Parts: sequence; structure tokens; C-alpha cells
Amino acid sequence: MTSAEIPDIVISRLPIYLRALTRMAADSALPTTSSGELGKRLGISSAQIRKDLSHFGEFGKQGTGYNIRDLINHLRRILKVEHEWDVAVIGAGAIGHALAHYNGFLDRGFRIQLIFDSDPAKIGTRLNGFEVYDVARLSEMLPAHNIHLAMLAVPAEAAQAVANELVQAGVRGILSYAPINIAVPETVRVQEIDPVVQLQRITYYA
Amino acid sequence: MTSAEIPDIVISRLPIYLRALTRMAADSALPTTSSGELGKRLGISSAQIRKDLSHFGEFGKQGTGYNIRDLINHLRRILKVEHEWDVAVIGAGAIGHALAHYNGFLDRGFRIQLIFDSDPAKIGTRLNGFEVYDVARLSEMLPAHNIHLAMLAVPAEAAQAVANELVQAGVRGILSYAPINIAVPETVRVQEIDPVVQLQRITYYA
Repeated sequence: MTSAEIPDIVISRLPIYLRALTRMAADSALPTTSSGELGKRLGISSAQIRKDLSHFGEFGKQGTGYNIRDLINHLRRILKVEHEWDVAVIGAGAIGHALAHYNGFLDRGFRIQLIFDSDPAKIGTRLNGFEVYDVARLSEMLPAHNIHLAMLAVPAEAAQAVANELVQAGVRGILSYAPINIAVPETVRVQEIDPVVQLQRITYYA
Repeated sequence: MTSAEIPDIVISRLPIYLRALTRMAADSALPTTSSGELGKRLGISSAQIRKDLSHFGEFGKQGTGYNIRDLINHLRRILKVEHEWDVAVIGAGAIGHALAHYNGFLDRGFRIQLIFDSDPAKIGTRLNGFEVYDVARLSEMLPAHNIHLAMLAVPAEAAQAVANELVQAGVRGILSYAPINIAVPETVRVQEIDPVVQLQRITYYA
């Protein structure tokens, strides 16, 4: 089965499984787990977990369950995070600042490498050790550093223009914090983080 | 059809529709739009949009499309954001700081009202005008302010304990920035924001 045939909703759960298994590996004395135990942790049915994983082959053994380390390695391979990806952060405002200080990227497959901003007052300063570069240098510096992933933390009004530059510079994936829909070519993948969208998903059920 | 019967994946798209329509209302000279135009903006098929909206009644008219303002009002009612919700932020670190400075909440249904932290050095200081309160006062202050929504921006190790206190204090929805799965009673809704989960959804397709 090719990746195009696996529903995106399945893909969206794999990082959650990986995160929970990594925590299990750190916490648990046992080398194995089951879809039941994993599901209980995540509030997902064990049948759903088995079905999701079955898209990618046979992982568990009847009766003995999953070897936690093996499943972590499989998921890292599937999600292509066995090695770290270099990432650029565009925008050195409050969100860029939080991203630069976040210590949860490194052991999960990502390493911030470059930070950009358009504000002359910020360019040349440091953010948690990272120098802030002029966003005008995107198209030169991203290919030079072989960076294909970016986190976009600029105001909504600037987001599409910066996204266009990122695509031009060879970026293939953008995690956008701007509360607008970004248009990109089909070869580029965008995921977005908008706290209001998540809050509205909560209030719907209130 | 009761809300329980509408798939969550449908609900997850409604805030995106609302966001795009609100932008259209600000940008567009025309009072109406179509599922085709909306879909083009969002990279979603017009059939999908019509099907999603059909769960909630008849909105568009054959040939004339949707009245943008009306559809905005319908979606606000469905998502229960016609009025603003007061929200508490727990954690005055880098993420709490970014949330306190984010100006995109107010006109979309949410208003930060209280900020808490456990760090004596932060308690009593101000974050974009908000006083930072001792997290020990959660159970007293949340009910007193009639707050039922919280954004959780504390370290992973503290997140479950704080979530338990939020539930005790009557919170019914939590937007969690902690990269762990939070266990809550079924009556409480959790959504989470984890940039690594989103980045791994991107790299899967790389």
C-alpha cells in the first residue's frame, strides 16, 4: 500500500503513538506493551491502534504484544525522523521566542538551525543563542544550509508572502502559526497550529 | 441529528470555515460566496464543504450560494462562540507569554482572564497587563471568576497534576501545550497543540 492510500487521519495518530511509546520506554520496566495498554494511555481503542499500525506491516505478536523499542524504531522510520531535520523559524516575535526556547524538538527529530525576522531591531540579536537573520536572506541561506522545513511565526498579513519565499527557497514543509490559510504548490505540505481553532473544537462540545 | 453523531473530523473543519469566512467578510465586496470559492481558498473540495455543513441544516441556496454573514453567524452559534469565553492560562513561561501577547483571541470568541504560575519569581508580576497569580489559588479563583476553559502551558512533568486541579476547579475544556497525553474524565474535553506532532505529519510525506 503506498503512502497516498493511507488516510491522513491515520498518519495524524502515528506521532501520538510514537510520543506515548517513547514515554513508556523511559518509564516502564517492561520491554513490551499491548495495543490495549497504549490505547488506555491515549484514550483510543485498541482495535483502532491495531488497525492503524496494520497499514505498515506486522508489528505485534499474538500474545506477547509489541516490543516498545522496536515499535519506536519502526514509527521513527515511517515518520522519517530517525535522523534530525534542520528547521528554520521565520519570525522572532513571541511565538518565535517560545519556539527558540522549546527543548522538546531535538530528541524527536528536529533541530532549529536558523531564525529570521524583518525587524531591523531584531536582526543581529540572539534568541536563546541563535542569531536572528534578515528575512531578506531566506532564499540565499536556506539552500546553503540545506533546510527544507520551516516554522512560520509571522503576522497573518505577512504569512502568504513569506510562505511564497520559503517555497522558492526549496522548503517542502511549513508549520504555520499564522491564523490564515496558506496557499502552496501541491509538492509542499502545510500543517497549522491555531489555538482558536482548537478552542472552538472544545466549545462546540460544551 | 445530535452532536454526538457528527464525526469529530467534521467538527474540526468548522473553525477553519469560520476563520476563512470571517476573512472573506473583511476582504470581499460581495455578500455571498459558494462552496467552490470557499473550497478553493482552503484546499478542500466543494462537495466536502457542502456535506460538512449539511449536518447542521440548509445554509446555501442553489444558484446563489451562501450569504457570508449568515453563515458566519450560524457557525458561531454551532461552535458556541457568539459570546466570549473567559479563559485561564496556566504557566507564565515562554508559551504563556506568547498566549498573553496574542491578539487573535478576542474577536474569535475567547478572552484571557487569569494567568497562573508556580514560580514565586513570577507570581505578582504582570504579563502584558495580566497579573500572574499563584497556581495554588486555581481552585478558589476559577470558580469565583466562572472560568471553564484553560490553556495549559506548564512543563510535561507538571501537566497531569495541574490538569487534575483544573478539573476539580470545574474546568470543562483544556487546550494543552504539554507534549504528553492528559487523562481527564469523559465530561472534560482536551485538545492539544504539539509542534513536533505536526512536524512529524509533514516529514511522513517528505
